[in-house]
Amino acid sequence: MSHHLFDVALRLQPRTPDAALQTYLGHTSPDYWNMVGPFGGTTAAVALQAVLRHPQLLGEPLSLTVNYAGALAEGAFEVQAQPVRTNRSTQHWTISIVQNDADGQPVVTTTATAVTAARRETWSVSDTPMPPVPAPAEVERLVIAKGVEWVKRYEMRPVRGIIPQQWDGRGDDSLSQLWLRDDPPRPLDFASLAALSDIFFPRVWLRRASRVPAGTVSITTYFHAGRSELQATGSGYLLGQARAQEFRNGFFDQTAQLWNQAGRLLVSTHQIVYFKE
Amino acid sequence: MSHHLFDVALRLQPRTPDAALQTYLGHTSPDYWNMVGPFGGTTAAVALQAVLRHPQLLGEPLSLTVNYAGALAEGAFEVQAQPVRTNRSTQHWTISIVQNDADGQPVVTTTATAVTAARRETWSVSDTPMPPVPAPAEVERLVIAKGVEWVKRYEMRPVRGIIPQQWDGRGDDSLSQLWLRDDPPRPLDFASLAALSDIFFPRVWLRRASRVPAGTVSITTYFHAGRSELQATGSGYLLGQARAQEFRNGFFDQTAQLWNQAGRLLVSTHQIVYFKE
Repeated sequence: MSHHLFDVALRLQPRTPDAALQTYLGHTSPDYWNMVGPFGGTTAAVALQAVLRHPQLLGEPLSLTVNYAGALAEGAFEVQAQPVRTNRSTQHWTISIVQNDADGQPVVTTTATAVTAARRETWSVSDTPMPPVPAPAEVERLVIAKGVEWVKRYEMRPVRGIIPQQWDGRGDDSLSQLWLRDDPPRPLDFASLAALSDIFFPRVWLRRASRVPAGTVSITTYFHAGRSELQATGSGYLLGQARAQEFRNGFFDQTAQLWNQAGRLLVSTHQIVYFKE
Repeated sequence: MSHHLFDVALRLQPRTPDAALQTYLGHTSPDYWNMVGPFGGTTAAVALQAVLRHPQLLGEPLSLTVNYAGALAEGAFEVQAQPVRTNRSTQHWTISIVQNDADGQPVVTTTATAVTAARRETWSVSDTPMPPVPAPAEVERLVIAKGVEWVKRYEMRPVRGIIPQQWDGRGDDSLSQLWLRDDPPRPLDFASLAALSDIFFPRVWLRRASRVPAGTVSITTYFHAGRSELQATGSGYLLGQARAQEFRNGFFDQTAQLWNQAGRLLVSTHQIVYFKE
């Protein structure tokens, strides 16, 4: 069993062997703690992990949508995953994370859906080439002295669109590009791709140069990589790119991509984020 | 009661008054028929409509993810919608559409999640300006002599990226821009926005100039418009823009936007689509 902190955060104990509706017991990780709950990327990875561990799994992840209904409290949680429809080459999943509240009543903290697919080689082409950027070694590593815990689990080398140093309300752009990987390095898998898809700081901080409270409401990730692309990527760097499209009345959306160093687009991912005035 | 064919397609009969888990009875519409099932946009609109009709609804649609697990057969279906968590200003929904199979067994055809939100005015800005295009009246209407039924329910005026006239495998671009609205015109609402988000023909047809079988697997729509923007839009044209990011091993993704004529971004929407070699 791997002792990488990410694998520890993803440990799930099956409670219902062989049932279609699988229930797993998990525990929040202090190592991936954000401000008032776990890093959303870890939560997305846990939801996907419940699918990946399921005995009836068909194929590999194709899409994952995770809705953050409420922050997980520190402690134990239950994940439920069920294949509600299995076709010849695709399988549709519903997932939820549940935690007991102070009164011992189960409360849904997270809902999710996923599609897995048995993929085969076809005509393929990329319409989103990796932008030209300097190599990881040529870009300085971001050092955040007083950051939240989960940020320390990643090596980030920003190329552009760094967190503002001056919160002076003078932002004019929402585009970030950065090299990133687990720290310590860990071979890429679907769960870590799901987590890395949520690594970008809130676009409103950049666009407005104002550090208002913000949190992801819903994230959707499309996987363009199969097992062979993951293996080819290994523990190398990914180039992440994120930008907002619209900030409107308390919410903004973010659209993002992750390429490996060889320039292959591994995921495209989107989210809608709450922000406070 | 409106007799617009879109409203007829969306008619839902509640079967469980006042329950948190609402069940509605609906019926597929021949007027929005695609090749082997209903137009996916109608199915997304039906899922959203079940939320909008729910007696416990809080706020307006913020995000909607619809997973097409299997084609709906012509006939009756059941929609279930449940608010699994209600916060102060957001509400999280799970939705499913179920149909009986030939043996009378209930089968899930569609899963969905949605978030609704009570929004308030905040600092807002657009980072995706509407591209400069000629006005709707200056662009010729698309006439498809032998199209599927649902296409006749929309007025489409393509600016660029029209369906190829020659299926010669010589595509080099996946970008489409077109003016569109219901035909006959109908005042925009959240359900029709959900449907319009799925109006773009498969990007693989354009990029490859090859008419291979293709179908949406999962679509996510983020609503940036509230009721006042819908009212301001009325039954005017929307500018739709869609492009693919990656075609890989049997699936491609599509990212799209819909603006109203005044240039306000109403939705950003993404989907992952199956295609055959």
